[in-house]
Amino acid sequence: MKLSEPTLLLDENKCRNNISFMAERARQFGVELQPHFKTHQSRAIGGWIAEEGVKAITVSSLKMAAYFADDGWEEITVAFPVNLLRKDIIKNLSKRIRLNLFVNNLESAEYLDKILKRPIGVFTEIDTGYHRTGIHYQNTEEIAKLLEFFKQSETLEFQGVYAHAGHSYHVQGKEEVSKIHLETVERLNSVKDRFEADFGPILISLGDTPSCSLADDFSKVDIIRPGNYVFYDLVQAQIGSCSTDQIAVCMACPVVGKHEDRVEVVIHGGAVHFSKDFMEENAQQIFGKIVPLHNEGWGEPLTDCYIKSVSQEHGIVHLSPEVLKDIKVGDWLGILPVHSCLTADLMRSYCTLDGYELSCMK
Amino acid sequence: MKLSEPTLLLDENKCRNNISFMAERARQFGVELQPHFKTHQSRAIGGWIAEEGVKAITVSSLKMAAYFADDGWEEITVAFPVNLLRKDIIKNLSKRIRLNLFVNNLESAEYLDKILKRPIGVFTEIDTGYHRTGIHYQNTEEIAKLLEFFKQSETLEFQGVYAHAGHSYHVQGKEEVSKIHLETVERLNSVKDRFEADFGPILISLGDTPSCSLADDFSKVDIIRPGNYVFYDLVQAQIGSCSTDQIAVCMACPVVGKHEDRVEVVIHGGAVHFSKDFMEENAQQIFGKIVPLHNEGWGEPLTDCYIKSVSQEHGIVHLSPEVLKDIKVGDWLGILPVHSCLTADLMRSYCTLDGYELSCMK
Repeated sequence: MKLSEPTLLLDENKCRNNISFMAERARQFGVELQPHFKTHQSRAIGGWIAEEGVKAITVSSLKMAAYFADDGWEEITVAFPVNLLRKDIIKNLSKRIRLNLFVNNLESAEYLDKILKRPIGVFTEIDTGYHRTGIHYQNTEEIAKLLEFFKQSETLEFQGVYAHAGHSYHVQGKEEVSKIHLETVERLNSVKDRFEADFGPILISLGDTPSCSLADDFSKVDIIRPGNYVFYDLVQAQIGSCSTDQIAVCMACPVVGKHEDRVEVVIHGGAVHFSKDFMEENAQQIFGKIVPLHNEGWGEPLTDCYIKSVSQEHGIVHLSPEVLKDIKVGDWLGILPVHSCLTADLMRSYCTLDGYELSCMK
Repeated sequence: MKLSEPTLLLDENKCRNNISFMAERARQFGVELQPHFKTHQSRAIGGWIAEEGVKAITVSSLKMAAYFADDGWEEITVAFPVNLLRKDIIKNLSKRIRLNLFVNNLESAEYLDKILKRPIGVFTEIDTGYHRTGIHYQNTEEIAKLLEFFKQSETLEFQGVYAHAGHSYHVQGKEEVSKIHLETVERLNSVKDRFEADFGPILISLGDTPSCSLADDFSKVDIIRPGNYVFYDLVQAQIGSCSTDQIAVCMACPVVGKHEDRVEVVIHGGAVHFSKDFMEENAQQIFGKIVPLHNEGWGEPLTDCYIKSVSQEHGIVHLSPEVLKDIKVGDWLGILPVHSCLTADLMRSYCTLDGYELSCMK
């Protein structure tokens, strides 16, 4: 493999193992896996997921829904509050696939009911504690109004509720993640228990990768929608959702400067490649960890070797003296990303270890 | 103008005023303006800059150099440590334009000297205190070795030294910025004074937008390479490089959720649109400030209205109660970006207030 620019490497084996791992968990716990494709945005990787028997998927935009509908996916949930300005694409998709939208308020429901001539599925987001989107689980008055509306609509088929427990990203380990998971499930089920008699079956769905990777009680869950697990990343490893050797993507960046006095090298690899997401370890901001690159992929993170800061195109890499001495300008460094979703979104293509390019949605 | 997705609006008048402002400063101070095109990456905006008499430009990659060479620019400096793995494009560009590269170490110099069959210009980066790239200004031994090498090379024509005083981004106001500027200029000139007798004329060049916008002593500077000034942004306004009404780009994002209890709305507009850069004001992280949108553009930031957090696609917007009450799902919010370079790089096209799309390099 001959590289000349910052490149996002993809280890197909690790990625397929992650895909199998989650599919196996879903089978084991008796939940339906409808993975979130926003992380990889790749038809090829979608194909690997289909090989595991997955039938329905989750995306973050109507454009992404159209991209995967064109690839043959027949049931797609857009896990983002519906954008009412995209009437044409909503109507088009409703003809071609089983389309599920997130409808969290009456204005959106009324508008969709007015324009649609064919049925779509509807999920409502419930805020179980993350406070990003959705109706608070205790706001039963507002939930009831919405469900009443769906009940009389000819096109909006209410399917169930959804919660993204994004606060699971701020804890560590199976115990803490499971605690948030169980609380989320309980709060979603409080909505189900309250309304199911009046409004018919209510599916419970949720999506965060930490819970889907670590929790082991899904008895009151119907659908899981994790996305990041196909690649994982350093944040997931820090949470405990994966080990670092499960991380399936690695940036390769050329060394363009060496500064022995500061025990640092400069790479071509900055905010336009990694984004500016960082994690903290021992009060140090870390924008990526250095791994050795070899012909068959990459190894484990090297002790005390990390990107300490990024500007638009540059990354400043702190190295241990032992690692520094063997590195020269023109060499390549492997870097595990802090947040693989954002790195993949910026890079928009993958280079497999065999040298094939897999492209993302443009 | 009918929008349906998050869109980066460009106010051509503000942008042209910024372009004229910097061109006028360059004329006033007798320095050559070679603006950095990494911020806008647009041939159309490059054309507006050409109208001000600019003849030579600065870019951050060889690919970007090729993009603007194809548009007719005849002298281009790649202000990034040379990537030795791009031999073909370097040789190709050296035939078509006056190409200037940043060469900061002997390995790079030796390699280029070996492969080139035509002359290129060379600048060497000097570290004057920012500690990102370049040779430390006091490391005269290493600088001397490099200049000796250039002197005997048939193809590497040494032009001068360059410093990016990125630490000017961490101070505020004309006085503090000017202090860093003068120190940078003095340290660059210490290199010039030491070596000019032996190695011929040494041009002094520098690039940070705060110094180029605020300082008023350029008597010992030959070339300035600011980039961000074409748009400016909230960080530059905080530094004092511009006023908020000079900011020439504004994101338009649809409101997809309203949460009266938290005095917040949710927009479609997250890390994949804005990046994750933030600024701090009164100990609050701010990822963008809300401005009113109207037919002729946008107004000044609304008091106490800002993006308080972003995830991949979502932005959580804190609003004042007065602003919140008039906003409903499906409305648009205008948002001034914290860091316009990263927002432009993510969005990759602009919509002018007349509704024209200006695309960026792909």
